[in-house]
Amino acid sequence: MRFLQTADWHIGRRLFGYDLLAEQSAVLSQVATIAQEEQVDAIVIAGDLYDRQNPNETAVALLDATIQQLNLSLKLPLLVISGNHDSGVRLGVGADWFAETDYFLRTTLASVDQPLTLGDTQFFLLPYFEPFQARQFLQDDSIHTVAQAMTQLVARMQAQFTPGLQHVLVAHFFAAGSTHSDSETTVAVGGLDAVPLDQLAGFDYVALGHIHNKNALHSERVRYSGSLNKFSLSEVDQTKGVLIVETAPALTVKFRPVTPLHDVQNIRGAFADLSDPDYLRQHQIDQTAYTGIVLQDTNIISNASGKLKAQFPRFLTMQREQSVQLAQRQHLTQAQIKAPLQLLADFYQQLTDKPLTPAQQTWAAETLKEVDRS
Amino acid sequence: MRFLQTADWHIGRRLFGYDLLAEQSAVLSQVATIAQEEQVDAIVIAGDLYDRQNPNETAVALLDATIQQLNLSLKLPLLVISGNHDSGVRLGVGADWFAETDYFLRTTLASVDQPLTLGDTQFFLLPYFEPFQARQFLQDDSIHTVAQAMTQLVARMQAQFTPGLQHVLVAHFFAAGSTHSDSETTVAVGGLDAVPLDQLAGFDYVALGHIHNKNALHSERVRYSGSLNKFSLSEVDQTKGVLIVETAPALTVKFRPVTPLHDVQNIRGAFADLSDPDYLRQHQIDQTAYTGIVLQDTNIISNASGKLKAQFPRFLTMQREQSVQLAQRQHLTQAQIKAPLQLLADFYQQLTDKPLTPAQQTWAAETLKEVDRS
Repeated sequence: MRFLQTADWHIGRRLFGYDLLAEQSAVLSQVATIAQEEQVDAIVIAGDLYDRQNPNETAVALLDATIQQLNLSLKLPLLVISGNHDSGVRLGVGADWFAETDYFLRTTLASVDQPLTLGDTQFFLLPYFEPFQARQFLQDDSIHTVAQAMTQLVARMQAQFTPGLQHVLVAHFFAAGSTHSDSETTVAVGGLDAVPLDQLAGFDYVALGHIHNKNALHSERVRYSGSLNKFSLSEVDQTKGVLIVETAPALTVKFRPVTPLHDVQNIRGAFADLSDPDYLRQHQIDQTAYTGIVLQDTNIISNASGKLKAQFPRFLTMQREQSVQLAQRQHLTQAQIKAPLQLLADFYQQLTDKPLTPAQQTWAAETLKEVDRS
Repeated sequence: MRFLQTADWHIGRRLFGYDLLAEQSAVLSQVATIAQEEQVDAIVIAGDLYDRQNPNETAVALLDATIQQLNLSLKLPLLVISGNHDSGVRLGVGADWFAETDYFLRTTLASVDQPLTLGDTQFFLLPYFEPFQARQFLQDDSIHTVAQAMTQLVARMQAQFTPGLQHVLVAHFFAAGSTHSDSETTVAVGGLDAVPLDQLAGFDYVALGHIHNKNALHSERVRYSGSLNKFSLSEVDQTKGVLIVETAPALTVKFRPVTPLHDVQNIRGAFADLSDPDYLRQHQIDQTAYTGIVLQDTNIISNASGKLKAQFPRFLTMQREQSVQLAQRQHLTQAQIKAPLQLLADFYQQLTDKPLTPAQQTWAAETLKEVDRS
């Protein structure tokens, strides 16, 4: 089995107000080209096809055209799950018809009981879910985190393993050890929604969506493909693309980059330089990219961003270097992050000059356990 | 060919704030039952499946379940067009897959060139369209009304008629001669969007959606099925249901009513009676219905609607008889309605004490011609 892994298309997303549809269309057609060049047996799309539960018509039309091309024109089997940005109900309309042409679209937890065998590989499709959905599906009120749910779901999937086949999980969640960029949605404080990597050890390969950085995990066997576009200034240094995964005879994973229609970049410099067309040309600075600018100047400059927009038609934002450095100094390292209960206790003490009573502590601890919706 | 004709489901609609989903689900399952009892060859759904371009998830789930039951479980061919309340783009996702199971979903004008032959009948599916879409599709900038577009579209369809078959048009528009209730969307002033009945003479039968009253037209051959639910107080006297159409050997059309889960009614009476549980019981007044109340009292009554709500849990609105009569007296008869240009001229004169100049009249007449979006 040789498949293309992609995820986090976020069709309909905007970047600082700019409509990215043409950017998304450009990389999506490269996915089709790569799939053909690599002669893959299937395409795996691991969630967040849309950016919103309720995408607008142009986003719907682009996804529809893309899926039609891949599945109906190129006759490629598609294995698709919904992500946290998708509405499973809206995305899932028609799924019973789509399976006829090997477009397998799964949007509910029930799909863990519907493994798909393609060639030498048994695929398990696990759409994004929240703990309350797992509580209902598994009929177990003790489930409050994604990891708790995964313990049972993985066991349930493993019980369905066909011996002699490769076993691949397609899922959309935050696997422990991942790093984050600004453009994913918030991760619950305390990591309530994180799935430890060792829970995934039973699978030969895990194709993940959710994190936009393809290098978020340092595992050969559990991989994020990352997004196809840079969706924030924190992603400027990432190379975007898809993974080509071969499960047998040995697992091999190859990255194939896509070329953006327009790049997203951060530029640091003096206002006099960055507002000077000659300087920009001489230094071969890409004026067509979506551009965030960090000014090194300290003096007041009248209408600085207006003048920079004249040179960078896809201007995003302007900051001063000092404030960037200040913000960076304030960034907490992982070790400094306090547990939610401690944060609450400190805050209460600060407000009232009293510590939490034991009863309050118990109540707060119980309530924090319930706070499992990200 | 024997088919069931329905339209204007408006799934997701609310009535004075009440969610009607359970009401809609109840009548939709009766449609499935009637289709089986009548052993129809197909079901025609003539637009406005949803109430909104952007329906919420519960509405999407109900339509999805309904279509799955009719097409996948009962194996009934479906001929479906989008109406003015639907988003053609959103509703149309998956249409290329649906045709595999004889679920023919058409949402663009291009479908006039894709007639469908089922048994002895050739169906033409014409989704709702606006004049600007016809201008683009027909590449004719002179089109400013639906009727103008229909002249060309009908000729185009007739050129594709297969001799010896029955020819049925499925469409969603306002056919001239229809009467209106409050719950359809506005009809353009001057009837710019109306289609004269004589334009439809070439078809053996025309299955229409748009008007909620099944008796809106007095034609055996051109019929609205009406909606399945009463969607406003102006529809209280209408019986809702579906049509069973047999095209051969002779055209026969039969109405099959559906039974509402809860009715919609208007009640007229004295406050003392209508707020008295004994009176209501003795007079067998349905207290479970969605109820609009017209009070005949003239005196001031403290918290009248609050007290009426206690007897009518699905209370909609309360009016006084006098104001109803006043409003009725102010209703204009058809003959009294002024042409748009005359209305504009009168309004201008009223504001400025001057008549429109000849130049202004020309400009206004031109502009009114452009105002063809309903």
